[in-house]
Amino acid sequence: MSLDGLPDFPFRLAHQDGEARAGVLETPRGDVQTPCFMPVGTKGTVKAMTPERLKNAGAQVILANTYHLALRPGSATVRELGGLHRFMGWDGPILTDSGGYQVFSLKDTSHVDDSGVEFWSIYDGSKQVFTPERAVREQQTLGSDIIMCLDQCPPGGAGGNELAEAVRRTSLWAERCKRVHRAEEGMGGDGPQMLIGICQGGIDPELRRESVEQLLEIGFPGYAIGGLSVGEERVAMLETTELCAGLLPKERLRYFMGIGDPEGLVEAVARGVDVFDCVLPTRTARTGTVFTSEGRLNLRNAEYATSREPLEEGCPCAACQSFSRGALRHFVMQKEIMGLALLTEHNLTFLARLVARAREAIVKGEFAQFRGSVGFGGAC
Amino acid sequence: MSLDGLPDFPFRLAHQDGEARAGVLETPRGDVQTPCFMPVGTKGTVKAMTPERLKNAGAQVILANTYHLALRPGSATVRELGGLHRFMGWDGPILTDSGGYQVFSLKDTSHVDDSGVEFWSIYDGSKQVFTPERAVREQQTLGSDIIMCLDQCPPGGAGGNELAEAVRRTSLWAERCKRVHRAEEGMGGDGPQMLIGICQGGIDPELRRESVEQLLEIGFPGYAIGGLSVGEERVAMLETTELCAGLLPKERLRYFMGIGDPEGLVEAVARGVDVFDCVLPTRTARTGTVFTSEGRLNLRNAEYATSREPLEEGCPCAACQSFSRGALRHFVMQKEIMGLALLTEHNLTFLARLVARAREAIVKGEFAQFRGSVGFGGAC
Repeated sequence: MSLDGLPDFPFRLAHQDGEARAGVLETPRGDVQTPCFMPVGTKGTVKAMTPERLKNAGAQVILANTYHLALRPGSATVRELGGLHRFMGWDGPILTDSGGYQVFSLKDTSHVDDSGVEFWSIYDGSKQVFTPERAVREQQTLGSDIIMCLDQCPPGGAGGNELAEAVRRTSLWAERCKRVHRAEEGMGGDGPQMLIGICQGGIDPELRRESVEQLLEIGFPGYAIGGLSVGEERVAMLETTELCAGLLPKERLRYFMGIGDPEGLVEAVARGVDVFDCVLPTRTARTGTVFTSEGRLNLRNAEYATSREPLEEGCPCAACQSFSRGALRHFVMQKEIMGLALLTEHNLTFLARLVARAREAIVKGEFAQFRGSVGFGGAC
Repeated sequence: MSLDGLPDFPFRLAHQDGEARAGVLETPRGDVQTPCFMPVGTKGTVKAMTPERLKNAGAQVILANTYHLALRPGSATVRELGGLHRFMGWDGPILTDSGGYQVFSLKDTSHVDDSGVEFWSIYDGSKQVFTPERAVREQQTLGSDIIMCLDQCPPGGAGGNELAEAVRRTSLWAERCKRVHRAEEGMGGDGPQMLIGICQGGIDPELRRESVEQLLEIGFPGYAIGGLSVGEERVAMLETTELCAGLLPKERLRYFMGIGDPEGLVEAVARGVDVFDCVLPTRTARTGTVFTSEGRLNLRNAEYATSREPLEEGCPCAACQSFSRGALRHFVMQKEIMGLALLTEHNLTFLARLVARAREAIVKGEFAQFRGSVGFGGAC
């Protein structure tokens, strides 16, 4: 369903079971089966993973970060090197965020008004300005497939006025982002791009409703729920997710920004979200923590030193296929790069298999049973 | 050719061209085509590489380090976890060194006499004693395929008395190592083991002659040239190599310990050496330096920032197949693990292809041309 004559990546809803959805997003670089967890490649690489291992771990679409790439090595350099796909060695779809989250969370913001946000670069302290226009242009230059509007993401615990102001500004910026996107007829450096709007409003139902309505008015082929996972209670987060998803059109992709724990993924899927991203699975892997069907396991614990078991029985990842918990623990304790790489691959494989099982359950109309069986359902 | 009724890994000399040899070492875990460069997996992993990527990079046999593994996680723990192959996730042949080099080079030696060497563990400062007996037993417990005698490796610039003493002690220890090896009928924790003797003597021709003769008297199925690459001139190193190789029996494997630069490998092959190891290719990769047919290239140089070229045209490694020099430079500058992994894979692939080409040239009787064509020949 094309919007305003802009290129569109068709999103087909294959099945729905309760609010949980199984869909397919058709991108010029391949289909994405949803629900789908998208690994985060902040600086152009999902840390400790090569593109080949990412594919092996079931990644369908990966993220890269406009804030970081615009500053190092610079979007123009990425373009000169053949665009983002060539740069990252990844021929599947890539989603770039707008940089908004980093600008606000890295706390080096010097000034924000309706024109944009001023901040100091974490790389060299230089003063930078991100406007909605620049955020989209950087993403056009990078040449990703799915691009995000610049939003203002208030910190957890922000007051009502701050949240309301962020909603107003985010809508204002969304409109300007769409204008820049439309000026190029939706084309980025390497082909058509899908521009996603982001709603804000913290955990305030009225503000969320307002935010979603304003975005719907502008019109996007997909909508993201931003401004959550910033320290609020899990219950409030899920209620807000449910509210937003309920306000969004069924035929549009829904993206929850910043969730990557197995329990949270299943609960967000239960509330009608299609895609997710988070650094959690990769970051915790690098500290020695892995996901298993029996919960998280911290390999640094001495109890695993002589364990011959794999991390997870039946897991097809390289860590589980070739290494015992005891050996992996040794590599983690010795800070061996291979240990970090193997644990990262395991966590991503675990999440990819979890959402694939969720999809299968939705298709069969057995999502409720699945949600119960994975042991997290209802606990949140 | 079995020695003293001990298990033997047949070494067949397929071709010889001048002094350069092409052979096959038949191990219970697969054949090793020589000349062969063996990547070093100090603590049980070749840094930044997984076993799968190592195979892809052409590794046939890999090293592990008895000093490190005996202290962390301990040989008994490795045994409990299923032995060294299972621990490392590597089903090909593994060579373990004896720990001698580390004991002497880490400079935490407290006392050395004919009984063994006392040192403080780099892990916890505990006092440890390595005797020839312990060195072999640790390797038996680990369960590697090719094991090394404990030797005394004097530092570069050591005087004649120190070198002579090291030769005498190394021979004494070699005999005791063989005794322990024989007591188990040459069997380690996971099958037959091949015990290699190491000659010492610095760059003193008389001492080297003496050392080789003493080792030949004891009798080993393979001989290593140790105590080089410790700061001596390249010319002296190669002369000593030539001398030792000339004294060793044609039908036995010859191993140069500690050479891993492309020029050095070709020159050592020219002098009749079969196998090599060194941390150089993997260590330099982690600092951003890669081997190419035009010499070393330091990716940190700004000139590569916008280079779309691969590291080496025609190289089949993952770095060259999927990434530009500019992108790799970015990953190196940002200290991204993937960058270190890709550069490591490239350097190992480069060396594996170099020695494979050397082998091919030897088989065809064209080694002299090959040596000239790679551009290092005679320069040393």
